[in-house]
Amino acid sequence: MSGTVRPEPGFSPERLAFFTDAIFAIAMTLLAVELDRPDEQELASARALGSFLVDQRDSYLAFALAFILLWSVWRRHHKLMDRIDRLSNAFTGWHAPFLLLVAFLPFPTAVIGASATNPMADTLFAGTMAAMVCCEAVIREISARTGLTTGDPAEARHQADGSWAVGLWFILSGVAAWLIPYAFVLWFFAPLASPYGGALISRLRTPHRDPHDVNAPRP
Amino acid sequence: MSGTVRPEPGFSPERLAFFTDAIFAIAMTLLAVELDRPDEQELASARALGSFLVDQRDSYLAFALAFILLWSVWRRHHKLMDRIDRLSNAFTGWHAPFLLLVAFLPFPTAVIGASATNPMADTLFAGTMAAMVCCEAVIREISARTGLTTGDPAEARHQADGSWAVGLWFILSGVAAWLIPYAFVLWFFAPLASPYGGALISRLRTPHRDPHDVNAPRP
Amino acid sequence: MSGTVRPEPGFSPERLAFFTDAIFAIAMTLLAVELDRPDEQELASARALGSFLVDQRDSYLAFALAFILLWSVWRRHHKLMDRIDRLSNAFTGWHAPFLLLVAFLPFPTAVIGASATNPMADTLFAGTMAAMVCCEAVIREISARTGLTTGDPAEARHQADGSWAVGLWFILSGVAAWLIPYAFVLWFFAPLASPYGGALISRLRTPHRDPHDVNAPRP
Amino acid sequence: MSGTVRPEPGFSPERLAFFTDAIFAIAMTLLAVELDRPDEQELASARALGSFLVDQRDSYLAFALAFILLWSVWRRHHKLMDRIDRLSNAFTGWHAPFLLLVAFLPFPTAVIGASATNPMADTLFAGTMAAMVCCEAVIREISARTGLTTGDPAEARHQADGSWAVGLWFILSGVAAWLIPYAFVLWFFAPLASPYGGALISRLRTPHRDPHDVNAPRP
Repeated sequence: MSGTVRPEPGFSPERLAFFTDAIFAIAMTLLAVELDRPDEQELASARALGSFLVDQRDSYLAFALAFILLWSVWRRHHKLMDRIDRLSNAFTGWHAPFLLLVAFLPFPTAVIGASATNPMADTLFAGTMAAMVCCEAVIREISARTGLTTGDPAEARHQADGSWAVGLWFILSGVAAWLIPYAFVLWFFAPLASPYGGALISRLRTPHRDPHDVNAPRP
Repeated sequence: MSGTVRPEPGFSPERLAFFTDAIFAIAMTLLAVELDRPDEQELASARALGSFLVDQRDSYLAFALAFILLWSVWRRHHKLMDRIDRLSNAFTGWHAPFLLLVAFLPFPTAVIGASATNPMADTLFAGTMAAMVCCEAVIREISARTGLTTGDPAEARHQADGSWAVGLWFILSGVAAWLIPYAFVLWFFAPLASPYGGALISRLRTPHRDPHDVNAPRP
Repeated sequence: MSGTVRPEPGFSPERLAFFTDAIFAIAMTLLAVELDRPDEQELASARALGSFLVDQRDSYLAFALAFILLWSVWRRHHKLMDRIDRLSNAFTGWHAPFLLLVAFLPFPTAVIGASATNPMADTLFAGTMAAMVCCEAVIREISARTGLTTGDPAEARHQADGSWAVGLWFILSGVAAWLIPYAFVLWFFAPLASPYGGALISRLRTPHRDPHDVNAPRP
Repeated sequence: MSGTVRPEPGFSPERLAFFTDAIFAIAMTLLAVELDRPDEQELASARALGSFLVDQRDSYLAFALAFILLWSVWRRHHKLMDRIDRLSNAFTGWHAPFLLLVAFLPFPTAVIGASATNPMADTLFAGTMAAMVCCEAVIREISARTGLTTGDPAEARHQADGSWAVGLWFILSGVAAWLIPYAFVLWFFAPLASPYGGALISRLRTPHRDPHDVNAPRP
């Protein structure tokens, strides 16, 4: 029966999901536009072009890193939206800063690609990712608390904890960048922070919740 | 019953909504491409990169401003299209200048980002936004007058008044830019002009309408 | 009954329509990326920026021209696809050169924007548009001859004649560019070639068709 | 009956198909952004612009090549997804490197456009295409082995063989580029490697399969 109810104008989940997809797809494809093109001299011989490509390896690594991170955030959003039947103003409104940070990411990616050992560059990238993932966490908290999801609210809350864990991982690694070089390589493992760190955070937050809410997997 | 009628060729609202979404998403993501990338010298140290980022703060502010404004216009269009069952030539035709101005916006955004205190730059941006929002108002007027909306026509007309109010806000602020610096910061509040200014305009236009049409909220 | 038949794999019209929309939307939005950004000196004062904008007027005109032309081609494609129930290999295959030319258009647009009085630039633009519209005409002919459309095949054939007329208009104007300057302004009227020129071409092709096919409007 | 079952969250094929379409459409349209724009001197006369366009012919060829190759990969993906009813983690996960390579392609395209006779440039392009098509082959193998397709698994496996053949073609041509110049022109024929080479590979792999699986066409 609820399937036939038309959502209120402006609150059809499909169009928000579509819009989010488009922003992600464009941001991910624009990442490759940032890569430096070789000039005439660097194209003069196979050897010269080879040296150019080796010199630019950090750029390619940064491109792959940002692509994989955005992919994993997109996948989590895909899973979230498949559980949402209707939108609320808060749920939709928090997509504005979330998508703004997605659209912004090519800029920090270009910066770390050009100077991966500069801790300020690493902080800029980690800060953008941390803010993006925290927006994701807020969106999940809203969906869990206001009953927008079709499934178990406890599960939705646990998913939010996973997002907070990823955000925390980026904040910590942004600090670590001032102590160790090439900290950005660690970010390839950020998607793993979600299941393990999320379980930890769920456990810490248990006192504030009903005891039957916590069904976190044991890592 | 009306749900099973296939719209005339070229007048399926879904494809126009989709096309509009795509133009908005691309324009919003391209905004970040406009941001200046640091050169080698500015990447040499954490301090140099920090100074560069602080120097470029107007660009980041302009990026965020244009992103939020396009988001709010997109949200209003989302709400409008969810009430539309079929298209007309006039309704569709006015989307051409509307979307042209959306696609154009990254250019004035780059200009105000590079020179926020230049009143000509502010006028260019405010003029583009004013023209875009006035196209939106015309689209709403058409939907209200020709019975394309499924809901209350008076409500649709009131929405159009909100759009006119936002357009007026941009025209006034474009003029204000010649008198005060940093007028563009005021534009962050433009979405608020819609409910408050719209109610005012609705009241002013009342004599030309049936008295039962006006159900404007009291600000 | 036919509505429940799943089309053969790879021949669902929706996904081709969607893909076409995406290419059009991106090409149209990228047009604005081509516009020259003012440098520091041109941003120094309101007067300097004003002179820059006036100097660049051809670029803005070329942007608006290409946007409106792509919009009108997109609208015609929208109307075509709303009549298509299934795809064929030929119908789909001709979308490859068609969309290639759509994606290519920002390049000739940038060239005429920078040098509108250069007849070679005009020829490049007119040639690209002529080839694109001729691909459109071939796609329409295929849909009419192989019975892919749901409506009257004669109507579909007449639509194809309209496309051929627009293509011819661009070829003629590409030649005219060597004789008169600013020929490109005439292209704003190209969408009008479709109803009037199409009727003419339909009349010329009548002997090769059944007499009851011709239901062209009298211009 | 199975048609009414809602897929598990995050495993709705439509949204993955849509996302893939968006990445392809953007990458294909961005190819044209790579083309060098003529400078003021090259725009001074019709003759100067003509020489510029002739000089840049390799860029236009590379643009057309990459566009057609991506189009043919997209068409094959379109046909694949129309046979998929549900997703699996492996099937979805292999889309990440696949789409990463699609998004990356404008870079090698720009490089071969600027220096088509440099064997390192050819190797970079052929390597990117080979890796992309091998990801496609893996995706097809997964769909055939884990029963995600609605049709005959043997047919799906045969399709995968076609993809492996195209990948092999690119690896061989990447090697050939060190022996003969302009090897990249051969890549226009890569889509043909799928039916012919695929039949060959299917025959070679027959001993490892049930005899009734092989229904490869005779080339």
